[in-house]
Amino acid sequence: MAKAVIITIGDELLIGQVTDTNSTWIASQLNNAGISVIRRVAVGDNATDILNALNEEGAKADVILITGGLGPTSDDITKPLLCKYFGGKMTSDPDVLAHIHHLFEKVYNRPMVERNIKQADVPDNCTVIMNLRGTAPGMWFKKEGKIYISMPGVPYEMQGIMETIMPLLKKELALTTILHNTLLTAGVGESVLADMLGDFENNLPPFIKIAYLPRYGMVRIRLTATGDNPQISKELDNRFELLQQLLSKHLVTNKDEPMEAVVGKLLKERNKTMCTAESCTGGYISHLITTIPGASAYFEGSFITYSYQAKHLLLQVDEKVLIDKGAVSENVVLKMAESALDHLKADYVVAVSGIMGPEGGTADKPVGTVWMAYGKKGHIIANMFTFRWDRKRNMEITAIQALNCLRKFILADKYNPI
Amino acid sequence: MAKAVIITIGDELLIGQVTDTNSTWIASQLNNAGISVIRRVAVGDNATDILNALNEEGAKADVILITGGLGPTSDDITKPLLCKYFGGKMTSDPDVLAHIHHLFEKVYNRPMVERNIKQADVPDNCTVIMNLRGTAPGMWFKKEGKIYISMPGVPYEMQGIMETIMPLLKKELALTTILHNTLLTAGVGESVLADMLGDFENNLPPFIKIAYLPRYGMVRIRLTATGDNPQISKELDNRFELLQQLLSKHLVTNKDEPMEAVVGKLLKERNKTMCTAESCTGGYISHLITTIPGASAYFEGSFITYSYQAKHLLLQVDEKVLIDKGAVSENVVLKMAESALDHLKADYVVAVSGIMGPEGGTADKPVGTVWMAYGKKGHIIANMFTFRWDRKRNMEITAIQALNCLRKFILADKYNPI
Repeated sequence: MAKAVIITIGDELLIGQVTDTNSTWIASQLNNAGISVIRRVAVGDNATDILNALNEEGAKADVILITGGLGPTSDDITKPLLCKYFGGKMTSDPDVLAHIHHLFEKVYNRPMVERNIKQADVPDNCTVIMNLRGTAPGMWFKKEGKIYISMPGVPYEMQGIMETIMPLLKKELALTTILHNTLLTAGVGESVLADMLGDFENNLPPFIKIAYLPRYGMVRIRLTATGDNPQISKELDNRFELLQQLLSKHLVTNKDEPMEAVVGKLLKERNKTMCTAESCTGGYISHLITTIPGASAYFEGSFITYSYQAKHLLLQVDEKVLIDKGAVSENVVLKMAESALDHLKADYVVAVSGIMGPEGGTADKPVGTVWMAYGKKGHIIANMFTFRWDRKRNMEITAIQALNCLRKFILADKYNPI
Repeated sequence: MAKAVIITIGDELLIGQVTDTNSTWIASQLNNAGISVIRRVAVGDNATDILNALNEEGAKADVILITGGLGPTSDDITKPLLCKYFGGKMTSDPDVLAHIHHLFEKVYNRPMVERNIKQADVPDNCTVIMNLRGTAPGMWFKKEGKIYISMPGVPYEMQGIMETIMPLLKKELALTTILHNTLLTAGVGESVLADMLGDFENNLPPFIKIAYLPRYGMVRIRLTATGDNPQISKELDNRFELLQQLLSKHLVTNKDEPMEAVVGKLLKERNKTMCTAESCTGGYISHLITTIPGASAYFEGSFITYSYQAKHLLLQVDEKVLIDKGAVSENVVLKMAESALDHLKADYVVAVSGIMGPEGGTADKPVGTVWMAYGKKGHIIANMFTFRWDRKRNMEITAIQALNCLRKFILADKYNPI
């Protein structure tokens, strides 16, 4: 089975200024193709550490994917170093140069400077992979039977180059099949799930592994099968079917998709629409829903009523109720949900008001207290939740919980079946 | 100077299902304390790879920070492996056990299962670091003068343990000072900036390094100084001052803070409020603003009008204009901005309507076309932008551009000075 290592280069990764999303994306692409990523390594912009990484990781893997260190500015030392490492000579590539000229003249519409022209210089012993989304080309080297591919660190550019590379890699490597089946549960913890699945786990064949991936009140459970025998895929499907039966009470979806996509599908299947009324989440629920392409088919819009005044002016929440009961109260979220439904003429609604922290908590209503209302015209339910995290995580878990409440409401709504 | 390596453990990191945010966070903590992170390594949940990483990274660094592999489910093999590696014996820790009992009884309010009790088992040769935010304790080992610290992979729990650890690490290590000064620019590319700064870069002393960190139409520029000489900090400040002068036209902030924090501060200083009216960004601008603690001081709320109907019902956009000009048009964003200001009684507004992709583009208005309006009552300006990325990135760059337009408008508003 082909083994890969991902090397990311950049001081910004080592001082904690930038999160490495490239490795995540590259790893998922390689895995889908049946290439096993065995390690990921990040090193700084200095020659010794980059050389050590090339030597060490080259000894461990068949394919070494490198991102970063190829931008136009002078903190970049990677390209000359790769050139020397693979024993080549720098030379200007006419295709890359023409492409850079085109980008500056037609797309960026700004003057080209000397350092942009230098980006067309490549080692003469690599295969150049054109970067249609930027100026720094990809480079494909071979050394002692190993493949080394260097790509820029800008995610969008790297992803374009990976699209070119994947078919080439599949051709060059003898690939073992890796299959993943993933489901999503909500409302129950990792340990309880693991206890429910004790026998299931013990009876798994050695070529199928299980993993629990908890996040924001949800747990994803993944079964992974490795091997080329055609029986393996069938066996994985059988086990996954059994897994879904065992967890049916807590199952959100049997695909590797987020909560917001599941809610979107439920609405689309029923030809219904939704809206939100948000205080403490500040538009985060609305944002999650609209990250899904095609959300306009079922999403009308939202009222983000962050201030007392906005709750009163936009959603007619009684000022006396706001003062007497507080913005984080059953009466307020119920009224927010009702008014949002009325104004936006949507079929379903979810409304939230809470205290996300770090400030704003009281003895009565500590940070993490959230009231949610969800439902449809004439049938709106309110619940209180208490979360116990920091601001960012409280927002995330509140949004997921709100969407899960709505999901269950839609599923239970016998007047609006598919 | 003390060197650190971060090892993250988990198959989910190698198949691309989870992005490693822990390393970013840990790296920033260590850097602030003057500990240099020289590498980050991610390995899977298997004994051989974990052992190899311990051996290899232990040889390179003074401190080895390990996260992941300590959860209650059976895909975790790290703890017994660490116990064996450091030559200890597993034993139940009474303090950890009491804490787990407390969590399940008082906080989680659900039954404890056998595997939760087992989380109190720790190697007898480590110093236990209590995890007040979860069940898996941290463990501090020493071997051949090196410090190894194992922490759970749940970010919030890991962060709590790091808070305990940092003062202990500072005490144990002889630390060189690392200083970072970072500023943020917008509206101009990395190469142009680098060209403007050619002389500046060439004249930097060897102990000060410069780095360009581009993201979403913005570029952060970071100066880093290393060394214990008290002159170094003064020299860094002088160079940073000069850098700000050279870039004054494009400067957003001279702190390491996001655009939304800068806009928030401008409003707070002027005692003014803002609101948004969003179509294509679906609440993302509103979400960014409310990620900043204390945003309620200057943020009223938003209208998220995703559908034609919502634009008409909530913001009185003429149905005929929507049909004749399209939702992505100057007339529509101007009306959205005007109505949002009126309804929410805020001082400033920003409104956006665009096509984020992948669907919805036309020859006239391709994916990435965005109309923005920003300003205040009686003075609203509209501009069109064309971005050229995927849905996610178009949303992000649109939100940042909108906030930057508003920022410049507020700064130029001589009727509302500080």
